[in-house]
Amino acid sequence: MAHVAVMAAGSWGTTFAKILADAGNTVRMWARREKVVEDINVHHMNPDYLPDVPLLSTITATANPLEALDGAEMVVLAVPSQTLRDNLADWAPHIGRDVTVISLMKGVELGTLKRMSEVIHEVGKVDFDRIAVVTGPNLAKEIASEQPTAAVVACIDAARAERVQDVITTKYFRPYTNTDVVGCELGGAIKNVIGLAFGMASGMGLGDNTKATLITRGLAEAIRLGSALGADPLTFSGLAGLGDLVATCVSPLSRNHTFGVALGRGRTLAEAQEITRQTAEGVKSCRSIRDLARAHDVEMPITEQVEKVCYEGLSPRQAVAELMSRDTKSE
Amino acid sequence: MAHVAVMAAGSWGTTFAKILADAGNTVRMWARREKVVEDINVHHMNPDYLPDVPLLSTITATANPLEALDGAEMVVLAVPSQTLRDNLADWAPHIGRDVTVISLMKGVELGTLKRMSEVIHEVGKVDFDRIAVVTGPNLAKEIASEQPTAAVVACIDAARAERVQDVITTKYFRPYTNTDVVGCELGGAIKNVIGLAFGMASGMGLGDNTKATLITRGLAEAIRLGSALGADPLTFSGLAGLGDLVATCVSPLSRNHTFGVALGRGRTLAEAQEITRQTAEGVKSCRSIRDLARAHDVEMPITEQVEKVCYEGLSPRQAVAELMSRDTKSE
Repeated sequence: MAHVAVMAAGSWGTTFAKILADAGNTVRMWARREKVVEDINVHHMNPDYLPDVPLLSTITATANPLEALDGAEMVVLAVPSQTLRDNLADWAPHIGRDVTVISLMKGVELGTLKRMSEVIHEVGKVDFDRIAVVTGPNLAKEIASEQPTAAVVACIDAARAERVQDVITTKYFRPYTNTDVVGCELGGAIKNVIGLAFGMASGMGLGDNTKATLITRGLAEAIRLGSALGADPLTFSGLAGLGDLVATCVSPLSRNHTFGVALGRGRTLAEAQEITRQTAEGVKSCRSIRDLARAHDVEMPITEQVEKVCYEGLSPRQAVAELMSRDTKSE
Repeated sequence: MAHVAVMAAGSWGTTFAKILADAGNTVRMWARREKVVEDINVHHMNPDYLPDVPLLSTITATANPLEALDGAEMVVLAVPSQTLRDNLADWAPHIGRDVTVISLMKGVELGTLKRMSEVIHEVGKVDFDRIAVVTGPNLAKEIASEQPTAAVVACIDAARAERVQDVITTKYFRPYTNTDVVGCELGGAIKNVIGLAFGMASGMGLGDNTKATLITRGLAEAIRLGSALGADPLTFSGLAGLGDLVATCVSPLSRNHTFGVALGRGRTLAEAQEITRQTAEGVKSCRSIRDLARAHDVEMPITEQVEKVCYEGLSPRQAVAELMSRDTKSE
């Protein structure tokens, strides 16, 4: 077992800390706010993000990121994807040379169009064989309540993926290993955008036939972009692709879904933000994923329409009409 | 446009007759019961299966199957899959040599382990290039209320698939062509079994992570069996595979889902039958699909467990426990 730093104490970061502690590791979390640090250290809870979930006392927290990183054999990064670059610039000098860096983040950086592992490699000077990505159908609240869940640990170094797997396996959390980091990261990022589209369709009252078609066509978009970027197309049919996509689409716990529902009911982006109290990851990622697709000449019609709804004033109804009227006669 | 016979007037057969008529064809339906014949001919409705859905007067019905078949350029078969052989034996001599036979049935015949198109070929003496399969995420009630829906027309003769496509395209029903009949039929049959498992998981109160995993692993089973039987694995990632599977799993309108929910809540098979007033297709197909998998040395753990729940007294809880404890460490 290991001593692990978990950088950020949102719902997924905290849930992941719980998994690590339940698997027998000691965990040091970094939380931005002193209140969260105190909740974890004194009350062994993080009620702002995971109400009613008790945490083992082998999880401690600090507001000082360097203190969190000190002595860690593994470092888990769980910050919002668009803030990774700035945060990691400060932390990188304090991450040891042999440390495994685990990314829980699902997004594509705006502007640079880099995946999270690419940002970690660039800013953190971390070799790719030390970067592992954990992804899959992983709604944090369900895992925190110990519902049985499968996941994927992806690392180009299979042996390292297995070591991470060992360290995060519990009776309720079962990770499988994979070496296709590109596919796993893209699957996780694109699912946020498709989840948003699915939520819009729900909000508009469209039927399950349409929604199932949206998932199917959404997966096809992910496969197309992944293939263009060197991913294994089969990854998208697995837990990191389809699994994550379906969990996001069907669950009322998913922020992207909830956000999309609000848009589908005719709310503006600002109103939807107010309802969900934050911006869904798909809203942030739809533009960078669209740009990535355009840069590689890949057609992603659902992503295009989501971007137009979020940033160009297109109504969800017009977006669906445009999708349905596309002329594609052979599957 | 064409004159088409639709053999059987259940909810999908009737909905398909509506699609045909809305697309401009004349339709002659065969209904077993005189009451349904009268409802259709006099009231232009089939309230037993599609309450509140008006039908065009270009749809007529008869209780005499030979009268229905007379002069038809296309024949649509929509009987329960395990009754196809007996029905078709009577009808075959009355189906013309150039007629396109369209199968709406999703199942694998018990005992012979044949797909529906194979039974049509064998009993009806119909060449495979005259057999088209219509499938996809097609919940009948949604289509009957004209919710936009995509579908697949599969025929080994691409030109014939296109002709069928022309005849069944309406503003709410958009079929895509495909030549992989084996994959399309297997996708439709297996989804009933996985839908049953999904329903059981719902009934047991399992979370969306687990249910998303079930869909992912279920699709993997379908791909494995399909590959062994010569299907194109990509078919399963499309509307006839994933699309149909997701629609069945997420929709409360799906009988397999509802039936599975009853089993998951601890009802017996007989009690579940009483609640849903019929046996779900997945209950009938799980054994033949399991046998087909075994005959080709293909692992289908979810299908195996569903068969045990349906026919060997295994509790859904034990079935899930067995699935979760399987040792599969690399995806």
